[in-house]
Amino acid sequence: MNIPGKMVASSLMMKSIGTVMTRNWVESTFQRFCATTTPSAKKFDLKEEKAEFLNALPGVIDLFSKHEKFHEVPGTEKWMRNVLNGNLIGGKNMRGLTTVMTYKFIEKPENINEETLRLARTLGWCAEILQAYCLVLDDIADGSLTRRGLPCWYRREDVGIAHAVNDATLIHYSLLHLLRVNFEKSPYYNDLYHNFNETLFYTCLGQYLDIMTGMKKKNYDLFTMDQYNDIVKYKSAYYTYKLPITAGLMLANQFNEETHKDSDEISMQLGRLFQMQDDYIDCFGDENMTGKIGSDIQEGKCSWLAVKALQHCKPNQRAVFSACYGSHEPAHVERIKQLYVQLKIPQMYKEEENEIYNNIVKRIKSVSSKSHQELFLRVLHDTYGRKH
Amino acid sequence: MNIPGKMVASSLMMKSIGTVMTRNWVESTFQRFCATTTPSAKKFDLKEEKAEFLNALPGVIDLFSKHEKFHEVPGTEKWMRNVLNGNLIGGKNMRGLTTVMTYKFIEKPENINEETLRLARTLGWCAEILQAYCLVLDDIADGSLTRRGLPCWYRREDVGIAHAVNDATLIHYSLLHLLRVNFEKSPYYNDLYHNFNETLFYTCLGQYLDIMTGMKKKNYDLFTMDQYNDIVKYKSAYYTYKLPITAGLMLANQFNEETHKDSDEISMQLGRLFQMQDDYIDCFGDENMTGKIGSDIQEGKCSWLAVKALQHCKPNQRAVFSACYGSHEPAHVERIKQLYVQLKIPQMYKEEENEIYNNIVKRIKSVSSKSHQELFLRVLHDTYGRKH
Repeated sequence: MNIPGKMVASSLMMKSIGTVMTRNWVESTFQRFCATTTPSAKKFDLKEEKAEFLNALPGVIDLFSKHEKFHEVPGTEKWMRNVLNGNLIGGKNMRGLTTVMTYKFIEKPENINEETLRLARTLGWCAEILQAYCLVLDDIADGSLTRRGLPCWYRREDVGIAHAVNDATLIHYSLLHLLRVNFEKSPYYNDLYHNFNETLFYTCLGQYLDIMTGMKKKNYDLFTMDQYNDIVKYKSAYYTYKLPITAGLMLANQFNEETHKDSDEISMQLGRLFQMQDDYIDCFGDENMTGKIGSDIQEGKCSWLAVKALQHCKPNQRAVFSACYGSHEPAHVERIKQLYVQLKIPQMYKEEENEIYNNIVKRIKSVSSKSHQELFLRVLHDTYGRKH
Repeated sequence: MNIPGKMVASSLMMKSIGTVMTRNWVESTFQRFCATTTPSAKKFDLKEEKAEFLNALPGVIDLFSKHEKFHEVPGTEKWMRNVLNGNLIGGKNMRGLTTVMTYKFIEKPENINEETLRLARTLGWCAEILQAYCLVLDDIADGSLTRRGLPCWYRREDVGIAHAVNDATLIHYSLLHLLRVNFEKSPYYNDLYHNFNETLFYTCLGQYLDIMTGMKKKNYDLFTMDQYNDIVKYKSAYYTYKLPITAGLMLANQFNEETHKDSDEISMQLGRLFQMQDDYIDCFGDENMTGKIGSDIQEGKCSWLAVKALQHCKPNQRAVFSACYGSHEPAHVERIKQLYVQLKIPQMYKEEENEIYNNIVKRIKSVSSKSHQELFLRVLHDTYGRKH
């Protein structure tokens, strides 16, 4: 999402695979699409929108802080501003920006004005708030230390676990209240509200699968590709792609059976691509670029790499995997990375990434509306081009 | 809530104060009301309703478990049943029973049938679910050990903190989904879910005040009666009284400006009485009857007793309070209890309990509808008569 208006294949992939074949192929596909694209799609500048999106946050928080109860209970307005600023700033804003992008691509030009853009950005912030809620609680659950280069919310000296747990519920409420004050009179208010509720539910189902899969230490029978696909779909694809896209569709009054089906199917494929990249980056990514140190091997995560490795392991290699995976010992971590290279996992990654990309393009071509095609293609390209 | 159809003054009060004056006074007030009461109010048997209410839970959980996603994601339906049963069974069901009682008292007899009673009990379970969500998270925040005589949810061997945090969100979603499947077509659907959302928000504001008040150890400047009243109002009165009563009003289609004002004002007074009793029981209650060991002194809580003591302390007594309050040392705890007796806190408690009771009766008398008066009086009497 952070390489606006420019199509490059994942640099980490090229670093590991040492080929520009994929890059050429992706660029030519993109060129073919651009040749027939509309001016609005060409003009969309993600960097510019990110600046506007960040500028919209104070207004969103101001609106929420007008809740009458903050004036009745001293100190709460200031605290709430602190909670929202502390948990919404510093990320890539991918979910929020996808919401706004969806709206800008598919809304009729005559309906796009300052007020509807304000609403689109508010909806985008609602998607960011949903994620913030999950992250505050996930960090407590995982005992994580840092988030976006700072101590996790519950570890801050002025916060602590008691406030953090309570703040999570306040964060969730802020989303529900923002939907209410901005959209209560809209015909799609209940659709929006249910969309956010369902998305959070699906994300929790994915989290459940993830916890269960990781619970039986050193028993890797659950590390199957089916299980991986289920975890990714529920834990990530719904809130990362489907929610932002469908919320944008609802705002543009273009949410119906057909657009729902398109966005559901394409979102699930995009989510798969996104998570697979995430897993690859965690192991083979450039730490200077991602800003974080990978830890999937150490934590024994059911990553795409681990599942793929287990699929291709000979018995002696499986024994190595069992002995070294899920260990913080640097020699063990290195041994797993060696095993991945030995099994040609990076090459398999490149092939599967290409295949998924092709499948998504194929699916996008079946979308009946031109502007919707352009939207999905743009989301695909921004996903494919991300470096972290 | 557990002494149905019978009016007794709080036994713990009599134990401490050694008088039956209050009992006589309460009984005579109750008799005056009973003389003019309707058959439906007389007939309401809380014990009987509790049995029906508990019988309704499996049906409520069955309905939720029909969510299509449970069939898509293996294991989740069973897990969810486990989560709900594990966190909904074993309490006093005070919030749920107040919801059903409200509905039964104020609905027109011709509208009360199997289906509307099912809806009333489902709404009651929604109030219980809201509390369950708060308790799962509060126990994590406080590092509590037991709840309702069992290990707290996050401490169960098959759960752990990762599941517990995720389960809290699942519990919250179950409430939102139950409202949807049961009431989506009702004209009061949006009122209902806003009511639940707002109530949770107010409870979090109260929790914020509570955490802030307890944070500055040994600085008791914040332990004022105003602060105590605010904490009680937000942290307890809204979800314990106002939510169940207003949800019942909405179901009976009798929620309007007047009934809202009545239920708001009376709920806040009832909440004050309830919490004051809770604090008194924590220190002077009979452990055999309450089933729990008081810990407000040890934890340095801003209780009614502590605030009242600080109001009447001489400087040397305040020094004793500061030295001994918030300590787990048995001699310190005993010293605080002695100080309370020395300052005549139990007598002050009796006087204030009487005064609040009188004020609530006075407020109830100003309610225009007879059936609503009866409802509020019944809730007052069940609150006043509780032993734990």
